[in-house]
Amino acid sequence: MKKAETLLDILLDAEEFVSGEEISRRLSVSRTAVWKQINKLREAGYEFEAVPHKGYRIVSKPDLLDQQELAQRIQSKVMGSRLKILGTTVSTQEEAKALAEEGAPEGTLVIAEEQTGGKGRMGRKWFSPYGKGIWMSLVLRPEQPLHYTPQLTLLTGVAVCRAVRKVTGVMAGLKWPNDLLVDGRKICGILLESAAEDEHVRYCIAGIGISANLDRDDYPEELTGIGTSLKIEAGEPIDRMALIATVMEEFEMLYELYRKDGFQPVASLWEALSVTLGKRVSIQTARGPIEGMADGLDASGALRVRTDAGEQIPVFSGDVELRR
Amino acid sequence: MKKAETLLDILLDAEEFVSGEEISRRLSVSRTAVWKQINKLREAGYEFEAVPHKGYRIVSKPDLLDQQELAQRIQSKVMGSRLKILGTTVSTQEEAKALAEEGAPEGTLVIAEEQTGGKGRMGRKWFSPYGKGIWMSLVLRPEQPLHYTPQLTLLTGVAVCRAVRKVTGVMAGLKWPNDLLVDGRKICGILLESAAEDEHVRYCIAGIGISANLDRDDYPEELTGIGTSLKIEAGEPIDRMALIATVMEEFEMLYELYRKDGFQPVASLWEALSVTLGKRVSIQTARGPIEGMADGLDASGALRVRTDAGEQIPVFSGDVELRR
Repeated sequence: MKKAETLLDILLDAEEFVSGEEISRRLSVSRTAVWKQINKLREAGYEFEAVPHKGYRIVSKPDLLDQQELAQRIQSKVMGSRLKILGTTVSTQEEAKALAEEGAPEGTLVIAEEQTGGKGRMGRKWFSPYGKGIWMSLVLRPEQPLHYTPQLTLLTGVAVCRAVRKVTGVMAGLKWPNDLLVDGRKICGILLESAAEDEHVRYCIAGIGISANLDRDDYPEELTGIGTSLKIEAGEPIDRMALIATVMEEFEMLYELYRKDGFQPVASLWEALSVTLGKRVSIQTARGPIEGMADGLDASGALRVRTDAGEQIPVFSGDVELRR
Repeated sequence: MKKAETLLDILLDAEEFVSGEEISRRLSVSRTAVWKQINKLREAGYEFEAVPHKGYRIVSKPDLLDQQELAQRIQSKVMGSRLKILGTTVSTQEEAKALAEEGAPEGTLVIAEEQTGGKGRMGRKWFSPYGKGIWMSLVLRPEQPLHYTPQLTLLTGVAVCRAVRKVTGVMAGLKWPNDLLVDGRKICGILLESAAEDEHVRYCIAGIGISANLDRDDYPEELTGIGTSLKIEAGEPIDRMALIATVMEEFEMLYELYRKDGFQPVASLWEALSVTLGKRVSIQTARGPIEGMADGLDASGALRVRTDAGEQIPVFSGDVELRR
């Protein structure tokens, strides 16, 4: 069966302007429907020249991820060695989990141009518009027992932070446990999901959401002042494929280091990139709020908080607020 | 649509003997097929009187789990407050996981008369014949961060061990981390599966398999000498519903204690019921074998092993072999 012609086919095939009338005739839809479809493509990153009585012409295509090119650019051996690139999906975490359940090996990477149900921490949503970010999930099969997975969360943050600094020059910092901030605004979120049988980790899925090429007016109102993008901070568009490739390389390097020498070198790197340490913090935990100075990481990856009473408390999870 | 009549319907409805000929006519199957179906029911725990020229008569029905009766006998408030009893299923773990993903609350309990793909530790199978055991999975939603789930594994072992001793008088002991043994033979296996987002545990499924009423000839050859049952050890059949109810009550009591006072009281109970401590052990871990004396549990739930060189090593996971 021949696939039905789409608006995009017509415009990409044409070397010159195509009139709205012609498009409406060839697609058998109304002029209003054509106009709506044009707007959808605009949202997806296409730019058009529209001239009265002449019609529409594509001026620039969005910077989309290309499977073949990305595979060539990823130099790491294991991480990203299997790629699944999707257009629109509900959540790359769910895709990666399904692949992991089917036996996908360590290093399998799922990336989507857009997520309609992107997941953040604690059941929150993650804003993932089409073609503007890096929304990806990496399958891991760590040998370390479940007990140590918090260390992998921190390791992932270090890998992404190093890659962001290297590729874009934006000096992002790590907020415990694994947010990337620039001047207090969030530029990247990380979510590590684990499935375990007793202490044996069946798999972890490292979800990484990087707001790469979002413009200020892409953000919904409730995120203004909270989120920012690498493009906004760097003042120019980011090469997403270069950043993905570098995240994979940094991750692989750190994962090897961790496997060989344990958590200490990763913890030192995390501390060096942190914006949390040495600050007064207030943390909402399941057992109530904790306030004090963030002193460092302990051997297991917990944040050591020193209260005013001089007590040292290891904090494993919670929402951190940095105080002045 | 009227449900087709089954062999069981015919035999249960009849007050007297029903001839093989009559059964074969009413079910429209051969006499050989009737005989095969009778044998299937025998395997499921039904007992028959078979008299030449008269036919078959049910003498006793298997001791099956009854939803209403079990619900009445379970006195705990949360644990087991929602029951799903299945005849044959692939795995109660998979059933419970699906329910947990759909939002089933803490304390939801799935029990099956038979599992065709029962899961043991490390991808092993768990032998779960029809009507003979307690094959069940309990949904937990712990508040403690992921870091502490090994403690829940130990807590589950303590709950089951206490319930077994109380209901059956069989003095089972705990082998680290959570097998129940009687004279070195396995009587119960526990598997705790966890799903987490970073440090937040979305749910745990505590899988509990108790070989309650298996007879010696129920065991396949490869389990002879390794597995035993409560019926074999106690010398009489076990009231499965009483045991399930008591496991739920013990679990709830310990879970409350743990929530209020932390791991220490649970660890003390575990140590008191242990057959591992004070023994020489050899443990296969992901990082290689460890040999030494099993000294106790540390604060996180790891087994403290003292090597001959005097080193204290915390072991989080592995297969333990008890040495003489």
